[in-house]
Amino acid sequence: MRVFIAGIDGYLGWPLALYLSARGHEVAGADLLLRREWVAEVGGDSALPIASRAERLEAFRGTRGFALDFRVGDLTDYAFVKGFFEEFQPEAVIHLGQMPSAPYSMMDQAHCVWTQRNNVINNLNILWAIKEVVPEAHLIKLGTMGEYGTPAVDIPEGFFEVEFRGRQDRLPFPRQAGSWYHQSKVHDSHNTQFASKIWGARATDIMQGVVFGTRIPEMGDDWRMRTRLDFDQCFGTAINRFCCQAVIGHPLTLFGLGKQKRGFLPLADSMRCLGLAVENAPAAGEYRVFNQFENAYSISELACLVRDVAAEIGLAVEIKRYDNPRTEMEEHYYNPDRQHLLDLGYEPTRDISLVVKEMLLDLCDNRGRIEAHAELLIPDIRWDASRKRSEVIG
Amino acid sequence: MRVFIAGIDGYLGWPLALYLSARGHEVAGADLLLRREWVAEVGGDSALPIASRAERLEAFRGTRGFALDFRVGDLTDYAFVKGFFEEFQPEAVIHLGQMPSAPYSMMDQAHCVWTQRNNVINNLNILWAIKEVVPEAHLIKLGTMGEYGTPAVDIPEGFFEVEFRGRQDRLPFPRQAGSWYHQSKVHDSHNTQFASKIWGARATDIMQGVVFGTRIPEMGDDWRMRTRLDFDQCFGTAINRFCCQAVIGHPLTLFGLGKQKRGFLPLADSMRCLGLAVENAPAAGEYRVFNQFENAYSISELACLVRDVAAEIGLAVEIKRYDNPRTEMEEHYYNPDRQHLLDLGYEPTRDISLVVKEMLLDLCDNRGRIEAHAELLIPDIRWDASRKRSEVIG
Repeated sequence: MRVFIAGIDGYLGWPLALYLSARGHEVAGADLLLRREWVAEVGGDSALPIASRAERLEAFRGTRGFALDFRVGDLTDYAFVKGFFEEFQPEAVIHLGQMPSAPYSMMDQAHCVWTQRNNVINNLNILWAIKEVVPEAHLIKLGTMGEYGTPAVDIPEGFFEVEFRGRQDRLPFPRQAGSWYHQSKVHDSHNTQFASKIWGARATDIMQGVVFGTRIPEMGDDWRMRTRLDFDQCFGTAINRFCCQAVIGHPLTLFGLGKQKRGFLPLADSMRCLGLAVENAPAAGEYRVFNQFENAYSISELACLVRDVAAEIGLAVEIKRYDNPRTEMEEHYYNPDRQHLLDLGYEPTRDISLVVKEMLLDLCDNRGRIEAHAELLIPDIRWDASRKRSEVIG
Repeated sequence: MRVFIAGIDGYLGWPLALYLSARGHEVAGADLLLRREWVAEVGGDSALPIASRAERLEAFRGTRGFALDFRVGDLTDYAFVKGFFEEFQPEAVIHLGQMPSAPYSMMDQAHCVWTQRNNVINNLNILWAIKEVVPEAHLIKLGTMGEYGTPAVDIPEGFFEVEFRGRQDRLPFPRQAGSWYHQSKVHDSHNTQFASKIWGARATDIMQGVVFGTRIPEMGDDWRMRTRLDFDQCFGTAINRFCCQAVIGHPLTLFGLGKQKRGFLPLADSMRCLGLAVENAPAAGEYRVFNQFENAYSISELACLVRDVAAEIGLAVEIKRYDNPRTEMEEHYYNPDRQHLLDLGYEPTRDISLVVKEMLLDLCDNRGRIEAHAELLIPDIRWDASRKRSEVIG
């Protein structure tokens, strides 16, 4: 199948290009390489060395024997998106090309507006380019489990049957997102569902959990085929950041009580799930929502997991609680469904401690890169748009 | 109270400036005068002559004895918004400054993206300027009843108590908006609620019905104090358009079955409701939603009302059904609440036929202006982004 990946240079986009092309799909993609700039802007760097676009393309051709069509371009430029679709004629479009950091979007007015402008407009452009160029193509849009927030009821996959004052309806499940970035994803979900309704667009809206991991098998042994791994307060997500902390002997940083629960999944599971979505398209006009995660964990459970796995390889790790820079519930009910992907054949990774061990070993080889930016392991971006470094509270 | 009106040149903004200043509030406002450009772009014109900004300001000073601070500026320019707030120090901010037309937003990619970019960014800018300059100020943001769509259950005011799988929560009522414009308002509602949550912003989110009418008493007799009245397919809403059709002997144009139900309210009621919101601010951190309409009517009920009132003043009016250019349910349950404003003292207009009669009389004096653009009374903008003039179907 011809699969277009928006955001092909990213943490997920690059491995997905490797994964889908290894499965025999014809992959093309676009990226403005902004993730590299954002991480530099906040003073960070990937914990694992990452190849430039040119090196990646050279490694791809060298190991696969054919070229990858990965172009530098701005998805908020409609002419670029439409022109690329006209040339490539995608049958599936996977939209990963967005600014993905909650704290980055919370810094100030400029970052908030930039995030929503970029994410909303590039998603609209992709919807319009599908409509105008390849109306039968299937859009797989990456949303986030964070769109739902933490309601006191179970979280279904996108829709729920409700009774209200004696009448019944199937309604979209309400979204209560917790950052300007997460709000931008909510806006995109609404826009995507509407496009499906009025134009008959085929759409899969992925509410993805937090991804962790450094490898998928399709990367092989060439370092240039590896993906990035961030650990700064903006782009480093929980397990990835804990593993980076563990290998340099930094305390694992729980925010607040650490009882916040979220869905998580290994990088390889994310690839498998996106592959299942690509290979099982919905009908014309169908808008379906997949909650995509291996399991739900509390942050402190995960910190304990990282500590225990680290101990197995001889790393002594402390866990500390820091005052929470975010406005969020620290203790709450959390029970999201994730049946749709299981129905398509998704087999969640059985033992995530093996993934954590693999990560720790990969990161041990790169301690110096993390130590050089260790000050980034403590957050200072607060949800009231102030800056104040978090302090140990327990 | 110092009240800032974003969109002070518009159909609602200008009368609101007159209404609130007559009630003793100190009013200032901004507008980029884009409504005048959009209506010209789609080939339309106001059915009633409207004064230029300079003429309005002159008439205001002449009749009221003091100047109105009405500046031309772009609300998507944060420096402009913030600077104006720093100078004026508003205690309430009423945000009417958006592109308000569903068909205009549905025309093509450019109009869709422009609408969402403008509406989302200027609302974010107002939220940030309140946070950074006047954090105690009360934001009254104009949303629309169209954000809710037409669910098969009652529509509460923003939130509902639900039971789902044996657990209960109070959740935002799901939004199912029917155009790119309406979607932009949904995005703004989500962003506004989030600002209230993280910053403690005081916010009233008005889900307003469709407004109709030509006058409020505070306009007096000077024509320069009157507001615009549009009848083109983009900016002419149902009753206003029917009245324009009636006075030139054009059939009233029902779309499809004409059984679509919506909330409606006279212009004077809109002013009274917005005044009540201004004068009854919520607590810090409170985000409240008002459904603002006089009553819910089907489109064919309203067409019959206009026909009957027109007959009283000697105008013979036909009603015709046209094929529906919109994707919408034409027959549906519709039962929205509107208790919050009644609780604050809103007394809905008792007899809307009097408002319709007043409109018809005002419009009779301006038949030539409507006849000059009569071709705009039949829509051709379709929800699939094609253009095809609607035809009579019954």
